[in-house]
Parts: sequence; C-alpha cells; structure tokens
Amino acid sequence: MSSSSAAPGRGDRAEKPPMRDALVAAAFRLFLERGYEQTTVDDIVALAGVGRRSFFRYFPSKEDVVFPDHERCLADMTAFLAADFDDDPVRRVCDAARLVLLMYAENPAFSVQRYRLTKSVPGLRAYELSVVWRYERALAGFLRGRFAGLPDGALRADVIAAAVVAAHNNALRSWLRSDGKGDAEAVVDHALGHVRAAFGAGPAVAAGEGPGDVVVVVSRRGAPLWRVVQELETTLGRG
Amino acid sequence: MSSSSAAPGRGDRAEKPPMRDALVAAAFRLFLERGYEQTTVDDIVALAGVGRRSFFRYFPSKEDVVFPDHERCLADMTAFLAADFDDDPVRRVCDAARLVLLMYAENPAFSVQRYRLTKSVPGLRAYELSVVWRYERALAGFLRGRFAGLPDGALRADVIAAAVVAAHNNALRSWLRSDGKGDAEAVVDHALGHVRAAFGAGPAVAAGEGPGDVVVVVSRRGAPLWRVVQELETTLGRG
Repeated sequence: MSSSSAAPGRGDRAEKPPMRDALVAAAFRLFLERGYEQTTVDDIVALAGVGRRSFFRYFPSKEDVVFPDHERCLADMTAFLAADFDDDPVRRVCDAARLVLLMYAENPAFSVQRYRLTKSVPGLRAYELSVVWRYERALAGFLRGRFAGLPDGALRADVIAAAVVAAHNNALRSWLRSDGKGDAEAVVDHALGHVRAAFGAGPAVAAGEGPGDVVVVVSRRGAPLWRVVQELETTLGRG
Repeated sequence: MSSSSAAPGRGDRAEKPPMRDALVAAAFRLFLERGYEQTTVDDIVALAGVGRRSFFRYFPSKEDVVFPDHERCLADMTAFLAADFDDDPVRRVCDAARLVLLMYAENPAFSVQRYRLTKSVPGLRAYELSVVWRYERALAGFLRGRFAGLPDGALRADVIAAAVVAAHNNALRSWLRSDGKGDAEAVVDHALGHVRAAFGAGPAVAAGEGPGDVVVVVSRRGAPLWRVVQELETTLGRG
C-alpha cells in the first residue's frame, strides 16, 4: 500500500507544476470575464504567457481545464480501492467517495466558481456527467469484485455504487450552493451514513453497549420494510 | 388521469409518422454499413428520399436519431408520475422506470443494434448519460415532492432515484447483452425488487396472512444493519 493511497488525506502529494496552475487561473479569469464559449485556448495561453503546446501537454481540451483535478482524483480513488483491507466494502466505497469531496474542499472558492460555470454551460454539464460516471464505475467495479460469487453480486454492486454517488453529490451540491461555507465533510458524512444504514454496517456501536446486548423488534407482517427499518434504526439508536 | 398515463402499457398510442420511421431506418442502415461518424445527415435524407428540413423537423441532431423514443418515454414517465395515487412512492418510481424497459422491449432487434453502436461511439455514450440523467431527475423530482418535509427528504429522494436507475440499467444491459433474448420484464422486476427491499415496501403479502400477523426479530445490538435487514427479509418471507 503506497503512502499516497493509504488514506483520504494527501498532505504527502508532490506540488503541482506552476505552469499548469497558471493555465487554470488564466482560463477561469477569462471564463468569468467573457464566458466559457467566448474564450478560446489561444486566449488562455496568451494570458498565461505560454504556447499552445504547453496547454495541450496538460489538458486534452478546453473542457478539461475546467476540471483540472478529476484525473488525479480518479487515480487516487482507484489506488485507495486497490489497497483494500477493510471488512466492510460499503464503508470502503464511502471513504473512496470522500476523496472527491476533499478535492472540492481543498479550494472552496474555485469549486463554487466552477459549480456556477458548469450549471450554465450545457457542454460542461455533459462533461461532468461523464466524470461522475467514471467515479461510479470505479466504485461499482470494486464492489463487483468484493461481491463476486454472491447472489445478484453485480446488481448489488451497481445499486450501492449509484446510491453512494447520489448521496455524495447531494451533499456536495448543497455545500456548493451554500457558497462553500459550512463543514463539507460533516454534510457528506451524514449523507453517506444514510447509504450505509441502508446497505452496509451502521456507525460504530456506542461505548458502554456490550456486543451481547439484544434488541427485539415487533412488527406487523404487512408493514412496509422501510418502516420496519426505520423502527429498527430508532431502536438501535442509529436513526 | 389521462388514459395514456394510467399504466405502463401504451396500446392506445397514436401511430408514429411513417417519415420519421423511414429516417430512423435509413440512419441505422448507414450507421451499421459505414459507421456512425462516417454517416452525415445528408446521407440519411438521401437514402430516406426526403429533404434536410424533414430530418430536422423530427430530430434536432444526428445523435437524436439514434435514440428516437426517449423524448416520448420521458414525457410518458412525467405523466405517469404526475398521475400518482399510490401509497408507496418507491413502487411508483419502480413502475415509472419500467416504462423505459418497455420502450426497449418494444423492438429488441433495434435495441440490441443501438446498444452495440452506443458502446463503440464515445459521443453517443455521452448522449446516453445525459438521457439517463434526465430520467433520474424525473424520478428524484417526484420523490422529493413526496418526501417534502421529511427529514433528509431530498437526500433520500436522490439516493432512491439513483438506485432505481442503476438497478434498471443493470437489468436492461444484461438483457441487451443476451441479444434481447429472455424475459426482459422478469429481469428488470427482479432488479427493482432489490431496490424495493432496501428502500420501499416488499412484494405483496402472501394470501392467507392477515395484516395483524406479528413478526418478532431478535438481534444483537452490534450487528450491522444490513444483516438485521437480511434476517428480517427472511423472516418476512421477502428474501
């Protein structure tokens, strides 16, 4: 397990190249001043004071400069999942999803700017959907491996991966809509806790409760399962 | 409630215009013969024997002719959800998702051809992601309305909508990979049953069991919730 993939933190990461950062800064200044569609790669390199070839060394297209950190984050996620020694695969994919949040939370002002830009440019919206899809496939691929041989393993993997991504994105968007104020991690942890309650192990048992403690739930046979689960959550103190 | 939105069936639907069908048939013949990228709208209208304006009357772009029925299906889904009188919102969104399956199952050979085409053309893959996103938002929007005022209502809505779409698409793809053989509805119902077990009411109570029947589940307090739910499903005969 390499040190960079051991944990969601990335304090040990090498510095990003300054030219790459300069291109991102120049691009966003122009996108905000003129609009995304009205800005060309030539405009960006002129403002950054570099040549076109330098731009394309870092970014395959103009769209990629809007999301400069997703490739790194996808690689981090893949490495994090590959280094799995966790008994609870649902907790593992929730922790992997938190890597995306941490990327956004590294630079709240930039993330909020980009959120507004992405909402207003259909092409960027499509690009973002394809990135989200790649994260979801990374999580589902990991779960499919862990659920291999189980009944409906691939189905369960796909459903849980989609639920994790939806919960993460619900929380991320609410944090971005609040202009990046508030505790992003707390919001995402709360959302992911909802998925873990439905599909995985719940939060750790409160101190002082022995593992032998017993809970009895009595339910009408015809009650919807979600009501029974709600009842259980309340009884178990996980609601 | 209009008759066309009352149920997933659509036997009462008006016939599609023949020119539209001719354009779709011509397009697919050329896509399969020459490849998607190598086929122009001019090629399609020449083969169909109509003018360019006729093409654009039915399809905003070349991509849209690949998915000629999604707009109709989205409209059907929206109408179906708007006509909701169901006590169980999770069942309702599962039934709404089945409309998409029925659209594919109407013409298995065409759906399988398109599945292969979409897998091989990145632009079509992106288009498909944006369509899937619109279905998911329709389902999530309905659930957000139904869960309004509940704790974490929007979060629950987004997570359930994503889970329904993932389960539906897992089943749809396995049916498409089997060349459209087998019972598509059975495969999708099984997948959606998995989501309903996690989030909604289970299958109908078996005949002969009164609603007053009582189930008692005893569980260790430290047990993961999913294990307790599994236990419950077995006890309730929903496993």
